[in-house]
Amino acid sequence: MLLRLRPATDSSLRAPLLKLAEELGYSVRFLDSERSLAELTPRAEPGLAGAAHRSKFEDLTAVAAVLSSPESRELTQGGDGQPDSVVKIGAARFGGGHFSLIAGPCAVEDAASLRSIAHAVKASGAGVLRGGAFKPRTSPYAFQGLGAEGLDLLRAVGDETGLPIVTEVLDPRDVELVASKADALQIGSRSMSNAALLKTVAQSGLPILLKRGLAATVREFLLAAEYVLSEGNPNVILCERGIRSFDPTTRNLLDLGCVAHLKQVTHLPVVVDPSHAAGRAELVTPLAKAGVVAGADGLIVEVHPNPALVHSDGAQALSPEAFDTLAKSAQTLAALEGKTLALPQAPSPQASPEELKA
Amino acid sequence: MLLRLRPATDSSLRAPLLKLAEELGYSVRFLDSERSLAELTPRAEPGLAGAAHRSKFEDLTAVAAVLSSPESRELTQGGDGQPDSVVKIGAARFGGGHFSLIAGPCAVEDAASLRSIAHAVKASGAGVLRGGAFKPRTSPYAFQGLGAEGLDLLRAVGDETGLPIVTEVLDPRDVELVASKADALQIGSRSMSNAALLKTVAQSGLPILLKRGLAATVREFLLAAEYVLSEGNPNVILCERGIRSFDPTTRNLLDLGCVAHLKQVTHLPVVVDPSHAAGRAELVTPLAKAGVVAGADGLIVEVHPNPALVHSDGAQALSPEAFDTLAKSAQTLAALEGKTLALPQAPSPQASPEELKA
Amino acid sequence: MLLRLRPATDSSLRAPLLKLAEELGYSVRFLDSERSLAELTPRAEPGLAGAAHRSKFEDLTAVAAVLSSPESRELTQGGDGQPDSVVKIGAARFGGGHFSLIAGPCAVEDAASLRSIAHAVKASGAGVLRGGAFKPRTSPYAFQGLGAEGLDLLRAVGDETGLPIVTEVLDPRDVELVASKADALQIGSRSMSNAALLKTVAQSGLPILLKRGLAATVREFLLAAEYVLSEGNPNVILCERGIRSFDPTTRNLLDLGCVAHLKQVTHLPVVVDPSHAAGRAELVTPLAKAGVVAGADGLIVEVHPNPALVHSDGAQALSPEAFDTLAKSAQTLAALEGKTLALPQAPSPQASPEELKA
Amino acid sequence: MLLRLRPATDSSLRAPLLKLAEELGYSVRFLDSERSLAELTPRAEPGLAGAAHRSKFEDLTAVAAVLSSPESRELTQGGDGQPDSVVKIGAARFGGGHFSLIAGPCAVEDAASLRSIAHAVKASGAGVLRGGAFKPRTSPYAFQGLGAEGLDLLRAVGDETGLPIVTEVLDPRDVELVASKADALQIGSRSMSNAALLKTVAQSGLPILLKRGLAATVREFLLAAEYVLSEGNPNVILCERGIRSFDPTTRNLLDLGCVAHLKQVTHLPVVVDPSHAAGRAELVTPLAKAGVVAGADGLIVEVHPNPALVHSDGAQALSPEAFDTLAKSAQTLAALEGKTLALPQAPSPQASPEELKA
Repeated sequence: MLLRLRPATDSSLRAPLLKLAEELGYSVRFLDSERSLAELTPRAEPGLAGAAHRSKFEDLTAVAAVLSSPESRELTQGGDGQPDSVVKIGAARFGGGHFSLIAGPCAVEDAASLRSIAHAVKASGAGVLRGGAFKPRTSPYAFQGLGAEGLDLLRAVGDETGLPIVTEVLDPRDVELVASKADALQIGSRSMSNAALLKTVAQSGLPILLKRGLAATVREFLLAAEYVLSEGNPNVILCERGIRSFDPTTRNLLDLGCVAHLKQVTHLPVVVDPSHAAGRAELVTPLAKAGVVAGADGLIVEVHPNPALVHSDGAQALSPEAFDTLAKSAQTLAALEGKTLALPQAPSPQASPEELKA
Repeated sequence: MLLRLRPATDSSLRAPLLKLAEELGYSVRFLDSERSLAELTPRAEPGLAGAAHRSKFEDLTAVAAVLSSPESRELTQGGDGQPDSVVKIGAARFGGGHFSLIAGPCAVEDAASLRSIAHAVKASGAGVLRGGAFKPRTSPYAFQGLGAEGLDLLRAVGDETGLPIVTEVLDPRDVELVASKADALQIGSRSMSNAALLKTVAQSGLPILLKRGLAATVREFLLAAEYVLSEGNPNVILCERGIRSFDPTTRNLLDLGCVAHLKQVTHLPVVVDPSHAAGRAELVTPLAKAGVVAGADGLIVEVHPNPALVHSDGAQALSPEAFDTLAKSAQTLAALEGKTLALPQAPSPQASPEELKA
Repeated sequence: MLLRLRPATDSSLRAPLLKLAEELGYSVRFLDSERSLAELTPRAEPGLAGAAHRSKFEDLTAVAAVLSSPESRELTQGGDGQPDSVVKIGAARFGGGHFSLIAGPCAVEDAASLRSIAHAVKASGAGVLRGGAFKPRTSPYAFQGLGAEGLDLLRAVGDETGLPIVTEVLDPRDVELVASKADALQIGSRSMSNAALLKTVAQSGLPILLKRGLAATVREFLLAAEYVLSEGNPNVILCERGIRSFDPTTRNLLDLGCVAHLKQVTHLPVVVDPSHAAGRAELVTPLAKAGVVAGADGLIVEVHPNPALVHSDGAQALSPEAFDTLAKSAQTLAALEGKTLALPQAPSPQASPEELKA
Repeated sequence: MLLRLRPATDSSLRAPLLKLAEELGYSVRFLDSERSLAELTPRAEPGLAGAAHRSKFEDLTAVAAVLSSPESRELTQGGDGQPDSVVKIGAARFGGGHFSLIAGPCAVEDAASLRSIAHAVKASGAGVLRGGAFKPRTSPYAFQGLGAEGLDLLRAVGDETGLPIVTEVLDPRDVELVASKADALQIGSRSMSNAALLKTVAQSGLPILLKRGLAATVREFLLAAEYVLSEGNPNVILCERGIRSFDPTTRNLLDLGCVAHLKQVTHLPVVVDPSHAAGRAELVTPLAKAGVVAGADGLIVEVHPNPALVHSDGAQALSPEAFDTLAKSAQTLAALEGKTLALPQAPSPQASPEELKA
């Protein structure tokens, strides 16, 4: 471990560093005459303690930065011959050369429209159905989703179509309920830094679709994933959905440099959400295509049969017809990128249409 | 209610608007020949439904903006002769002409240092003791706070010194525990958009110190407060603590325009956290003073007897001596602004020093 | 013209509006009882004065926004059946279904390396050679380019290879010199808001490659182009090159939503600069490909035979071999997008190699 | 000089570094076994070449950062016992314990209103008159200022009142004209990165009021000042005027952390422009006061007798009465900060009122 130290007017600032190093079993060597760089060598094999130790040193006032930390390897870290992870949601696969489409309405509204969307997106090649039952909203007076009733609708339509379902969970106290219905759990942008929620969803064992916070750096995004992985759940799909910028032209600013960067530094799969980035239907398809050739292992797209009637985020939903066009383009480009497309399964027989009458 | 509509190529987009207006009991009149502006007049007295109706119209795709909404008044809204709210934490008062100081360590570490800080900041005029028992951290490997043990230390030192205590809660499942120990609950920046947590802390009935999210607009900040107020808890103190920008010169960018604006649009008190904004001790005092003359009703400042030993955020903590200087300047400026300073209470007798030996 | 007015406590604020409308020949009608919306109808045909009138109304304090302005059409505006513009640099064509590649070193360094790069990128399909003779630098002590000597080298290598050349001009006093050597003039990000420079380059009559400012909104970007077009020069190519964000992961944040949006609102061609956005060679190709499928009519890429020796921006330059791979991918994707590729011309015979000895 | 090197997969990346060090006369020593840190020691006294050398090393691909550079001192750098600079505009003084107010209209409109404003702000204690003759505008169709006629009005009113005048210059070709009329030259935000303009105004020898670019880091701001100082003109006043953020609540986000930081790292005086930051008159005074206690050596404020009639930026102009209140508060706070207030001079006798009739 190599530490860059802050310029010290007072050498007493270094005392806590020397004390901590002693406690944790490191020998310290200053590399320059100004004592601004310190090399720490563990006296014994550091093992899994490496990352925890690094964090303790980072916490010291005297330490400006930990320049490199070859002995500790974060769980999200890729490269060095490590194969890319393949994360499965039902039969859909993401990463390691596999590409899948997730599609569905922003919010679950009623059985008829959800079923209609699900059949349509499946026919276009989507491998996972999305839909919000619990909706995060900025205002307490905005539509907050159908809740448990929405989960039941999702489950029934998922069973009818054979599509696995992913839906957002907002409250650690809801995780057990949502996990009993869904095939994968979504952590939304507003929740990316919610460590209590991250740990709780991790313990469900389900695959986690983790959306980047709207002002999170890529480093913070990876550390949020690290919260899930460090609880023993390796099934994280990272989702770039645009970040906040000074320009209101698009709803958010899709950061495809983040996607290209992630594909180099982590073994986890990455999907792109062009709908929330664009905020307007006419920009969704170009951004979706751009995401695929920037390296994404999948897309998550909002679809609604009648965008004008949508309760939330209607302006960015695609019609089923527009999604079909997008899906064909995405599949062509993914194939050009050398990726295998996960095909949706045949409908499972156990779901009875009668359950779906609303 | 006046609605600005999106340019419509297809008049069917307007159908859901007309349908919704019909259902909710509004008559619609288009104000221009292009039908881009619609005035909605309620057929009966809208009462409390106003804000909920507004949210439904905002959700329609055809609606670009609700231009004004004179019949609905948000609970955070000030002006029009409404007096400013005074929020009390113990004997400390914020708002309505009252000014108080909150001070303490970033994280609670041990009884001795917490007690030493508490006595020092009280002697300098602080009216509330702060300290983190549950710490939000970006990395799962960083120090996460002492938890319940830290709460007990805070309570004991609060009782000994007579200072009320405020501490952060991160998980809705911890609210009951934290509320049983603390005099006020802090919602941190990372949690500002966590509606589940906001509703749960609101139900505790304790005063809520609500920090602005690091990429939240002032509007979103007020809507987070609205979540608390709409649960029936009027005791919210808004805290500006700097937002994220492109420039790493300071840790965050303190937005005093936000403070000046809030003092005009809401009746709630506003405090400034110069420590998290500055990120470096030498910038804390100038920003604290600036906050006071921009209109703040209080300050929240990190203090530590030995900043070099701090587990987290050490670089921004003030020594007790530096805090004493800051407090004197802040009090002079607050008095110039015509504000009354809340003086700390005498120590309460019931706390026995024996409880504090660690 | 429809004006949204600020809420007025004092009706005297409206007086200047009424006076200006009277002077310019508009009748005013308030559309609502609060007088917050005013419709202005010209008494005669407004003709070209429309945009100038709009600007005068925008300048009034009482006016919050000009909501629509159907009678004035900005010169950059597309749609409504107007065909996309095709801008030519030499034989290379941008826009209207034509796609071209611009490539070359960040800064011109010497004849041998420039010639080597030029021949290589031409062989890979580049239609225009780029290279900086006058370099904008943040520090007065950084390398500022070779100046006039660099221009001569560019001209000679352009003549030898038959590639037209584009180079940046920074000072209005240099425009005559640079325009005498170059086939197109580049306005860099730092200069996008430099109206004096925009007007002067416009008057050269050469095609202008206009880069987006690093914190410019898309609207400001288009208004910078409007400065050029309003001087009578229709040959503007817009270049998205990434904007500034809070995240240092990439050098700038490539805004492909901007590209998709521009392709819908303006008839001008749009190119993408993945090199300055990425800041690191390994991210250039994914971002370049993403730019093509987001709608770009061309790419501008930094190429250097020995990136480690580059005086400025070395980390983001591609080797000629990497550029060749990028060019092939870009051409495949552009063809998929239905675009015609401009092929580079045969070398022009008039350039004598003797001129190039340095 | 200490260089942090990029991780090198290929040792040939280091060759240019070793070659450059050899040429410039430095010996190189690697400080760690991974060769990621290199110490460069000049074989002879580096003298003034230090900064230039640093820039050459910064340009190398292999170099990630120059960690410290004790032997080169930038001209803007303060500290180490160097006294703060005092910059004079006429009799007004900024810095080194002196505080002054600059006030006037955004744009010069006519003699009568300019004269009225000038007399009013002088009576309130302003030491310098500001006013725009050449206005930077985003749209080519917006009011661009009166130009040379505006300069003549400013000069005449300055002479009549005895107030020195500062006005913006946008084009290097106008510097000679503007410098012949004005007492100080303003470089606007849009021009902060315009090196050609910075060098040309520096050569005028007049004091330069340098505004921070709207997305410039503090480091870039100081390097823009370095362009002026390195041309031999030490008279630079830095002006913080707010930066661009994601929140439209205020026009720009006033960065008082920048002001506090600048007062510690540079000897140059710093003023605050609360008008452009706020964008709304009611926020100007709180931000102005905050600027003073954050450490500013002066303020620059927009004043107009009839804000509703202003051609540009009217919403943020103060009335003379509001400015008088602001000035009194600012003077009280500046005195509390231990600063000496520059008092305006008596009117100079040579200006005849007859010259001013418009």
